[in-house]
Amino acid sequence: MRQLKMFGTSSLALAVLLACASVVAAGGELQDDLKARRERLMAKLGPDALFVQWSAPTRVYSRDVDYEYRQDSDLLYLTGLDQEDTILVLMPGNQAKREILFVSDADPKREHREGHLLSAEEATARSGIATVFKRSEFDGFFRAIMNRRAFRARSGEIDTEYDAFFAALAESRAKLALLFDARPGLHDELPPIYELARQARDRYPDARVVDATTLVHGLRQVKTAYERQLLAKSVAISADAHVAGMKAAFAGRYEYEVEAAIEAVYLKSGAMSWGYPSIVGGGPNATILHYGKSERKLLPGELLLVDAAGNYQGQTGDITRTYPVDGAFSVVQKDIYRLVFAAQEAGLKAAVVGNRTVDVEKAAAAVIKEGLLKLGLITDASGDQYRTWYTHGICHWIGLDVHDVGDYRRPLEAGMTFVVEPGLYIRPESLDNLAKTPENDKFAAAVRPAVEKYKGIGVRIEDSFLLSETGLVRLSTGVPRALEEVEALLQARQR
Amino acid sequence: MRQLKMFGTSSLALAVLLACASVVAAGGELQDDLKARRERLMAKLGPDALFVQWSAPTRVYSRDVDYEYRQDSDLLYLTGLDQEDTILVLMPGNQAKREILFVSDADPKREHREGHLLSAEEATARSGIATVFKRSEFDGFFRAIMNRRAFRARSGEIDTEYDAFFAALAESRAKLALLFDARPGLHDELPPIYELARQARDRYPDARVVDATTLVHGLRQVKTAYERQLLAKSVAISADAHVAGMKAAFAGRYEYEVEAAIEAVYLKSGAMSWGYPSIVGGGPNATILHYGKSERKLLPGELLLVDAAGNYQGQTGDITRTYPVDGAFSVVQKDIYRLVFAAQEAGLKAAVVGNRTVDVEKAAAAVIKEGLLKLGLITDASGDQYRTWYTHGICHWIGLDVHDVGDYRRPLEAGMTFVVEPGLYIRPESLDNLAKTPENDKFAAAVRPAVEKYKGIGVRIEDSFLLSETGLVRLSTGVPRALEEVEALLQARQR
Repeated sequence: MRQLKMFGTSSLALAVLLACASVVAAGGELQDDLKARRERLMAKLGPDALFVQWSAPTRVYSRDVDYEYRQDSDLLYLTGLDQEDTILVLMPGNQAKREILFVSDADPKREHREGHLLSAEEATARSGIATVFKRSEFDGFFRAIMNRRAFRARSGEIDTEYDAFFAALAESRAKLALLFDARPGLHDELPPIYELARQARDRYPDARVVDATTLVHGLRQVKTAYERQLLAKSVAISADAHVAGMKAAFAGRYEYEVEAAIEAVYLKSGAMSWGYPSIVGGGPNATILHYGKSERKLLPGELLLVDAAGNYQGQTGDITRTYPVDGAFSVVQKDIYRLVFAAQEAGLKAAVVGNRTVDVEKAAAAVIKEGLLKLGLITDASGDQYRTWYTHGICHWIGLDVHDVGDYRRPLEAGMTFVVEPGLYIRPESLDNLAKTPENDKFAAAVRPAVEKYKGIGVRIEDSFLLSETGLVRLSTGVPRALEEVEALLQARQR
Repeated sequence: MRQLKMFGTSSLALAVLLACASVVAAGGELQDDLKARRERLMAKLGPDALFVQWSAPTRVYSRDVDYEYRQDSDLLYLTGLDQEDTILVLMPGNQAKREILFVSDADPKREHREGHLLSAEEATARSGIATVFKRSEFDGFFRAIMNRRAFRARSGEIDTEYDAFFAALAESRAKLALLFDARPGLHDELPPIYELARQARDRYPDARVVDATTLVHGLRQVKTAYERQLLAKSVAISADAHVAGMKAAFAGRYEYEVEAAIEAVYLKSGAMSWGYPSIVGGGPNATILHYGKSERKLLPGELLLVDAAGNYQGQTGDITRTYPVDGAFSVVQKDIYRLVFAAQEAGLKAAVVGNRTVDVEKAAAAVIKEGLLKLGLITDASGDQYRTWYTHGICHWIGLDVHDVGDYRRPLEAGMTFVVEPGLYIRPESLDNLAKTPENDKFAAAVRPAVEKYKGIGVRIEDSFLLSETGLVRLSTGVPRALEEVEALLQARQR
């Protein structure tokens, strides 16, 4: 993933463009958008808050080699910077210097090894944040502020802008606003941010530590016009990649050859990495939700399930297609595919402003239950039998993270982006692994013939959507979805 | 990276095959090789030792998405298993059960999500280790052994095989052999393995904690016949990938398009990932040693530096090529390229049994100093002036890690694998950033005209080698290296 920057729209489907682009102002829009995001957060934080967020740590691959750097999504959302060792401070109560950025100190030797480090001017140009200090100044800055002292930056500048926060400190109203990860258990080791909060409470007992996660994630849940455009472009690239994968997926090839075709499209299109590790599973591997090995040979007659999307300018969609490597679905494969397709269609009808994702889930599940009953894979549509084959939720938010942040209890509104991804996985083991009860034994015996007929089939259909002011927009139109369209593409391909 | 397994040799250069294959026995060779590795380690550990090594942790990419799993290289070396939650125990003094593996407990729900987990039988077949317990049994096993109690595995089996270690415990001769990372500083946080060692010392004060790192890494430093074959194949794939990159690297394209061409070859060839993040740097980016962004457009007249290699079956070579995107080196580019080439050649001549890598370094540096003097880029070949442009060591081991483990003081012997990678980087900043001394000012003034002539040129030439019983074998013959060969390939390509 790279710095956010302007993008071309040549390969973007026209319908998507029309749905997204009309509300975007021209020129300097990323920096304007970033500023607006921070302003909205500061309005929610209030004048007594000091907000701090750190960049993500580097992650070891092996010995002295790191994985490719992945910025913390919240910091990326607020600054647009993907450089490590970056800290953002927001002080909404300040007269000036309400936004302060700390970036790596200049270091010629490090730059010869690892590449250019942003200068203060460049960090300002990319983030729209005027005040940029050196990373090494952060501890001194923080200590000075908490002692209600002016901070003298290395540039020689003395700040006298912090009166509101100093007053809040003096009157014990000050809040230290941090972003916490998932809460640890009582006896778990403290994650770094919790350790830091503990140290802050020890040292500044009169300042309240508050968790700003719901504020930031609440903002991230509704995409700006700029973000919508970027995500639309990201999903368009992923759709192109899926088409390339379909063209490469012949029987006799290996799963990794299909993955190669897909991931090459990401890179060629400027999506510098996957948004999540590609899932390319043929035959029985299609019934493994996050199959990551891609090492098996595709056999004639098999379905291939591909769940893959690139990370373009920080935005990640999510697309899954399942298709026959020979180009034609068998009769039993068609039964399952059409049922999953119908469930997705039903889910989409429920994806309207004011509904919740649970309504989408329910609408799809109703179709699944009825269909499984008809296929003989369950005997009772009123209970949880259908969960034997229909094993996961079908809605999640997308954006800076593939499983993006947001509150599932919040009613759907324009600007939300999400997937609808029903799937059926006819794993005979699923029947064997049911709890041993007379009821389950009876169920298993009754459906055994249908399981024998459909066993080993896994089908998931997943598309990425924007709920716009004018309705639901499928961002992944670039890759065929209906059974006949899928077959048409496969049958037109050449080895 | 996947489980180690047999590989085909169709694309392997014949010369490499001849050098490596003659000593390899047919059939079941990986398991035989793994067993031999463990036997050698156990002989060094001695009968009083209990050796434990854990698999690598998973690494977070963002939120609930992990990076693709990378096994700990030492565990991979000793077991061939790339599954997480794996523990290897070696007890060299035992009569039986000298090797014990702990692998994940069966978990149908997890397997539906993440894929198949090895059964005990499969873990045995892949690793050659007969005794396989469940991961959840490890704590109980360890407590039992340290209390000199028989361990009752879930299989119901009672072990009475540990008499030698029990005696060592009773007589305070017992050693707990672990593999430690790089030593932390006195005030650094304790890395997990050090924390564990501390806890072990607290609980078993009479057992000595010993670091087995030099033993394992000493073994890894000399490759077995099986490893040599695997590495040769890995490097052959990387060479093919470089050729594909050269064919894609036209002016007007982006660095990431070249990276796409390279990484697609890895995947298509069964190398499931890069061995390290690809470095694809055009023009000035060629002077950044680990440039990872690949975001710039290639301009006419520029050199492109590509440092990339795949990870095939756990083995990683290392290749760098630098070439003109237009297909022809300019006069000044030729000067630098030929000097780096000559330095590499000189280094190779010194890479003989009995020498040390420092001899390779010295031989290459001598050529570099003389050449830089002729080009006017230094004024004195006797001191460290050449380090302004020649900024890194040129030898490192390769194998399971791209910067593989081993002792650089150990004389070269047959079976060692390494790179020779001289590079020159004419960054004007390097001159500006010299310490301000009269001597440096004089040097800078004297070489300024030559720097003006060569500025912005970065050239590195890196090949992967095996020192075999019959001499040095270049494993990366598949990609042209001599200036004329490089130009010939580039000029024959079609857009």
